[in-house]
Amino acid sequence: MRDFLPAEVKAREKVLSTVRGVFESYGFAPLETPAIERLEILQGKYGEEGDRLIFKVAQRGARAGEEPDLALRYDLTVPLARVVAEYPGRTGKIFKRYQVAPVWRADRPGRGRFREFYQCDVDVVGPEFGLADAETILVLTDALAAVGLKGFEVRLNSRKVLRGLIESYGIDPAREADFLTALDKFDKIGEAGVRQELRERGLETGPRVLHEISGPEDELRRQLGFSDVGRAGLDEVDRLVDLVGPLVSEGVIRFSPMLARGLSYYTGPIFEIYVEGSTSAISSGGRYDGLVGMFAGRSIPAVGGSLGIERIIPLVSHGEEGVVSPAKVFLAVWDADARPDALAAASTLRAAGIPAEVYLGGERMGEQLGYASSRGIPYAVLRGPKEKEQGIVTVRDLATREQTAVPEGDLVAVLGEKLVGMRGKSHPAPT
Amino acid sequence: MRDFLPAEVKAREKVLSTVRGVFESYGFAPLETPAIERLEILQGKYGEEGDRLIFKVAQRGARAGEEPDLALRYDLTVPLARVVAEYPGRTGKIFKRYQVAPVWRADRPGRGRFREFYQCDVDVVGPEFGLADAETILVLTDALAAVGLKGFEVRLNSRKVLRGLIESYGIDPAREADFLTALDKFDKIGEAGVRQELRERGLETGPRVLHEISGPEDELRRQLGFSDVGRAGLDEVDRLVDLVGPLVSEGVIRFSPMLARGLSYYTGPIFEIYVEGSTSAISSGGRYDGLVGMFAGRSIPAVGGSLGIERIIPLVSHGEEGVVSPAKVFLAVWDADARPDALAAASTLRAAGIPAEVYLGGERMGEQLGYASSRGIPYAVLRGPKEKEQGIVTVRDLATREQTAVPEGDLVAVLGEKLVGMRGKSHPAPT
Repeated sequence: MRDFLPAEVKAREKVLSTVRGVFESYGFAPLETPAIERLEILQGKYGEEGDRLIFKVAQRGARAGEEPDLALRYDLTVPLARVVAEYPGRTGKIFKRYQVAPVWRADRPGRGRFREFYQCDVDVVGPEFGLADAETILVLTDALAAVGLKGFEVRLNSRKVLRGLIESYGIDPAREADFLTALDKFDKIGEAGVRQELRERGLETGPRVLHEISGPEDELRRQLGFSDVGRAGLDEVDRLVDLVGPLVSEGVIRFSPMLARGLSYYTGPIFEIYVEGSTSAISSGGRYDGLVGMFAGRSIPAVGGSLGIERIIPLVSHGEEGVVSPAKVFLAVWDADARPDALAAASTLRAAGIPAEVYLGGERMGEQLGYASSRGIPYAVLRGPKEKEQGIVTVRDLATREQTAVPEGDLVAVLGEKLVGMRGKSHPAPT
Repeated sequence: MRDFLPAEVKAREKVLSTVRGVFESYGFAPLETPAIERLEILQGKYGEEGDRLIFKVAQRGARAGEEPDLALRYDLTVPLARVVAEYPGRTGKIFKRYQVAPVWRADRPGRGRFREFYQCDVDVVGPEFGLADAETILVLTDALAAVGLKGFEVRLNSRKVLRGLIESYGIDPAREADFLTALDKFDKIGEAGVRQELRERGLETGPRVLHEISGPEDELRRQLGFSDVGRAGLDEVDRLVDLVGPLVSEGVIRFSPMLARGLSYYTGPIFEIYVEGSTSAISSGGRYDGLVGMFAGRSIPAVGGSLGIERIIPLVSHGEEGVVSPAKVFLAVWDADARPDALAAASTLRAAGIPAEVYLGGERMGEQLGYASSRGIPYAVLRGPKEKEQGIVTVRDLATREQTAVPEGDLVAVLGEKLVGMRGKSHPAPT
């Protein structure tokens, strides 16, 4: 788990607010769910490994040995499904929501993953396959482009394509999850590894399916023609490529029959997005027509996707760290008698929309200016007894160390002008 | 625990972003700490009742009966103290930070409190008593004024005033906490109740102190003159009233010797802020010069305060609920063939900075327009075969139902103009 100091918060927030802006430009609206859910809501939704990684929370007054019945949010999709089931009248027949929030996983520390990390999800609950699936992919690629990434490859498949193949090779449909689990490891363990795993799982014809998937596309398409569900899957893929292809920013979309996706709840199209130079996906998603029904008691289709925001932030940020001040003007305090004047001057600047910070420590001037520079504040205002007598203040540019004498009454106007001139220029880096 | 649907998220976020803006205008910078802390960091900091209300989190692989060693954040002050102790080089000698984030308390449900709620804190770590205490009160009253509240009464006291009185009446300093706990209940149980509680706690001279506190101020001041710490406390109060008084927005600050504050870690000035018509404080804080030292191993003074944001939001919001769309334009979809055109039109509008939403459900026009109206989207764009043939689109004002034919190429310009005209007018309420 991590602490984010102000410079990191600012860098992260810049990315997150860009992403939120793109989500909203598509009409997705924000939802906030609590960090704590009932354990029974989460259990059994993420597969065996997922169940193990859920953080459990003890109820007040729980006795030693008693099983906890609360848990920390593990992702944002299951809470969405619960909300739609819980307030059907308020979410309506079509509910487009985004949520940008932390989730928690009881992973072992030191595996390069964090136990608290942000997810960044868009989902459409209600519509059957079609426009909603296209828009999910488009909003995610637009968000990636907006934060400055490019060269996207959207890899698209449908669970129905994989199901069709399994069916056409006579594999028991009940073994589908086994087959997908093995196929999903292709990137990690390669073709030979997947073959071996399929055999170990007793899927004798599995390697033949694998061969088909990784072979020429026209042969694959012919084979899928023998299965209703396979044809339906191909049709989904082709329709999405047609709808999304012309509009996807900075990239391409292509049929990728190898793509399996780990999560068990997908039922239709699934996708992963790669950017130039990244070997793992930075965004992914798919259609999950069964999940909401587990809570609602009736079938409610849904499609959604997620940005791997913790991987994206380091790609587009520049290692900002430490403390920066949001203030643009620093008011030095000459001595104890000057305190009321400094507070009043700051108040006047803020009333004019200029963020201003009074020094709250001791009176040594070098220390005061050092503090202001180290926090990246562009201008300091100095006012000693001599200035006070003459009715002026000294404005110091903390980057160039240039000083200007300004009549007291002109301070707001002069600083306002200097700061407007700075806009667009980058904020001076803390030293 | 609560779910916030989009309209509520928007209303809450409006208040929170105003507050953040005021905090930043004073040069406070954002800090983010994880939701989960080690249990030992939190325990023993909040008093006996606090320790009971900490939510405990089980480590992965914890055996039944094993005590959890993680816990959910209980407030934002203790994590701040930990951060300052952990990264002294990065936070510097003066660290001004704000944090707006949820905290969790294992309170019994149904007591009108929430187990997850937001806190909104500003703190200055480093400076001794003086300007930092004044600025803490000013930034909080400014934030309250910025969200639209007024008629503030800042009630100010110092723990040193109370300690001085206790000393001057010969009460054992080790019993100070007992005395403060009883005094803190004055609002709930009245003077007679406090008297009785003091006697029950064996503080025989306690009622005389209580009489002194609630009596005429000049007598109290004379009594405090007999104690060094009492005089120091009075001096803190008088200096703060002088510094803050002339600048506090929309209100007054006054010495309130009855004020005790529950938390055990305060050491100097303490305050509570009331607004017109509220019987409980909506903001509070004080100086706590001992807390950071518990983590840092050396004394580090600090002062801070908190807005009771969950009480403030209902005071300044208007019961917004349900789903609103951030989109300003709704694109109806005539039939399946019209889908690519609708996606492309939406993309063009967004590129021009106009948030636009394509209907993702079926093709019934009444249903489509009903959806758009219910989500508060101001304009719909309709384009049937007739319009397509003529190269026009129909723009419908969803509030007035007025329709205008617009040449396809003028759509962005026409909608841009209509939306600029709307700015400042209130967003049409969802029906």
